[in-house]
Amino acid sequence: MALSDPKIIPNIPERLLMGPGPSPVSSSVRLAMAQPVLGHLDPAFLAIMDEVADHLRWVFGTENRLTLPLSGTGSAGMEAAVANWVQPGQRVLVVAAGLFGQRLADAAARQGGVVDVLEVPWGSALDAEQLKDRLAQAPEPYAVVALVMAETSTGVLQPMDGLSDLVHRHGALFLVDAVTAIGGMPVDVDRQGLDVVYAGTQKCLAVPPGLAPFSAGEAALDILRQRPSPVPSWYLDLSMLERYWGGERFYHHTAPVSMIYALAEGLRRIRREGLDARFARHRRASAALGAGLQAMGLSLVVDAAVRLFSLTTVYIPEGVDDAAVRGRLLNDFGIEIGGGLGPFRGRVWRIGTMGEGAQLEPVARVLSALEATLHRTGGVEAAVASWGGASGA
Amino acid sequence: MALSDPKIIPNIPERLLMGPGPSPVSSSVRLAMAQPVLGHLDPAFLAIMDEVADHLRWVFGTENRLTLPLSGTGSAGMEAAVANWVQPGQRVLVVAAGLFGQRLADAAARQGGVVDVLEVPWGSALDAEQLKDRLAQAPEPYAVVALVMAETSTGVLQPMDGLSDLVHRHGALFLVDAVTAIGGMPVDVDRQGLDVVYAGTQKCLAVPPGLAPFSAGEAALDILRQRPSPVPSWYLDLSMLERYWGGERFYHHTAPVSMIYALAEGLRRIRREGLDARFARHRRASAALGAGLQAMGLSLVVDAAVRLFSLTTVYIPEGVDDAAVRGRLLNDFGIEIGGGLGPFRGRVWRIGTMGEGAQLEPVARVLSALEATLHRTGGVEAAVASWGGASGA
Repeated sequence: MALSDPKIIPNIPERLLMGPGPSPVSSSVRLAMAQPVLGHLDPAFLAIMDEVADHLRWVFGTENRLTLPLSGTGSAGMEAAVANWVQPGQRVLVVAAGLFGQRLADAAARQGGVVDVLEVPWGSALDAEQLKDRLAQAPEPYAVVALVMAETSTGVLQPMDGLSDLVHRHGALFLVDAVTAIGGMPVDVDRQGLDVVYAGTQKCLAVPPGLAPFSAGEAALDILRQRPSPVPSWYLDLSMLERYWGGERFYHHTAPVSMIYALAEGLRRIRREGLDARFARHRRASAALGAGLQAMGLSLVVDAAVRLFSLTTVYIPEGVDDAAVRGRLLNDFGIEIGGGLGPFRGRVWRIGTMGEGAQLEPVARVLSALEATLHRTGGVEAAVASWGGASGA
Repeated sequence: MALSDPKIIPNIPERLLMGPGPSPVSSSVRLAMAQPVLGHLDPAFLAIMDEVADHLRWVFGTENRLTLPLSGTGSAGMEAAVANWVQPGQRVLVVAAGLFGQRLADAAARQGGVVDVLEVPWGSALDAEQLKDRLAQAPEPYAVVALVMAETSTGVLQPMDGLSDLVHRHGALFLVDAVTAIGGMPVDVDRQGLDVVYAGTQKCLAVPPGLAPFSAGEAALDILRQRPSPVPSWYLDLSMLERYWGGERFYHHTAPVSMIYALAEGLRRIRREGLDARFARHRRASAALGAGLQAMGLSLVVDAAVRLFSLTTVYIPEGVDDAAVRGRLLNDFGIEIGGGLGPFRGRVWRIGTMGEGAQLEPVARVLSALEATLHRTGGVEAAVASWGGASGA
């Protein structure tokens, strides 16, 4: 049996992950997963769960009791949000400003929601007035209004000011995707009035993919308790998960222990850095990357005012072969950047500055590799200048 | 901020995991997760996905194209099975011989299935005649018949001979939970005629919890393609997941990369050992544990003929405090065993012999600790005798 030959175990190459996620993961987080596995009801593990939940409340800016990592990737967070809070026949408004907004509409409709989509052009943000008008014109009230705060397909950061007031005045729950925001820019669940919010670990939290940080407030929990029908998803039923993560420790499913070690270590690193310092670092990295790309003569898709700190979309220059450039970056330079999705396929690259990638050195590396591949100059220089002079000075 | 003090990072104790899972995980599997994170569309990662799918087909005994690990724990496998194959209004028969069968009935009903439950007493297996009669008496045909092959709440291995013929003659799909069987005893998907089967990583595969190995055959896929309504779960919609794990590599969600490294390494270890050798090892460990427990004067719940190789249920002796004994094993000996669930709570312990735990040394350790705690003798001696003499001889 050839498989018993240790030589064929594939070598895993070291990549610089500068795409839309997963982002680079530090050795301390990766090694956390190598620690001994504990039982999911072991007091030593329960202590780590409590620690993780506390850290998550801090990152989410919330006092929500129901704050936990779901046992699936960020998309499982979306699934849990709609499975628990979109009830069959309920009217739902989904703002779709990119692929992940469209997905949210799809997922809500699959739960039996009667979904209206408020389309926003790719690369733009929703204007609060648009939402106000749409809500005012609704023939029947919406039970849920859902949107993506950090749209990974376009690189747009949705300004949140005033949105929750509009949604709550309408009488709806506000359900928000913060996958690409959390840990890289403010997600203030309590202050921003987010009723249900989900995120992922593999972006600005700098933890491998596999968990979905999740939080829901009391208004959302009240609705959950009053559901006339059970949540269709046994696995993601938050009324049961709450009983495991809460004081009761009621067994639901076997928690992904090793992934939770990784999240705990990732969150400890963030606590040591501080959120404000971390957000500033992401903002600087994004600015340096943007300055570098523009110095090379490339055009950014998104206005600086609504550009994500964690992901920059840039137009692929005329005549340049998308796949060839990304292949060269990966194979010759060991650097991953992302291609475009949907209408942006072949037209746009997506370059991440997430977590460990939100520093000058990785930004300079991706710019340098792009310069060499595209035969352009000026990118690294501009990035260094934007960062504030020579590094190491 | 106290959290920045590295001293308070909790030490993770080394436990010997002899409960119902998670089971002990080797250092090579744990260290696999510490490897550099790859992007979910990186060719180097796609190669690992192909390797994992091939290994899983081998462990499942199937040529099913749709064979993959779902991005969630074993319970996500159950969820996927019912979300994709139990359609609203369809009649479903679930055999419930324990908690996990009851759960399957609950999950199927949440999907809108009209669920009949064939109750089997806890600690017993279904008799094929019972199923035959029940199917013959069905006022309307069932679309799905579901059962748990290895019932983790009772320690019973369901004999599978003839069951799929009965189900298929009835015209139903056969949906099977193999969570606690896979890797420890034969799960022959093709030969046993299982249409949809799900498993978990944290039992006899000896990989941390977090993935659900899954396989579905062509008959199941035909039904999936003909569904009049979309699968309610976007996250677990196998028609989309198939497009990522198949040749198309269509992006669905970001795979839990590090967990898949662990599964790849765990499956490589199993390939090197060989399935027959591994099953024989589990059978021996179970026999040694059973002999040891009986030599101590304890009574086993399940007849040897239908006893799982991976999990032994034993009655708690009269007058013995369940929680105190388990607490002492954990705190004084670092050994985890499981308590009873449902009607077995406080009446039964569940002792695993799964994966790395299915060896004489860990079996002797748990027996020795039980002897010391319960003030009994003879257990270790009987286990060693059953194993075939002094170890190391």
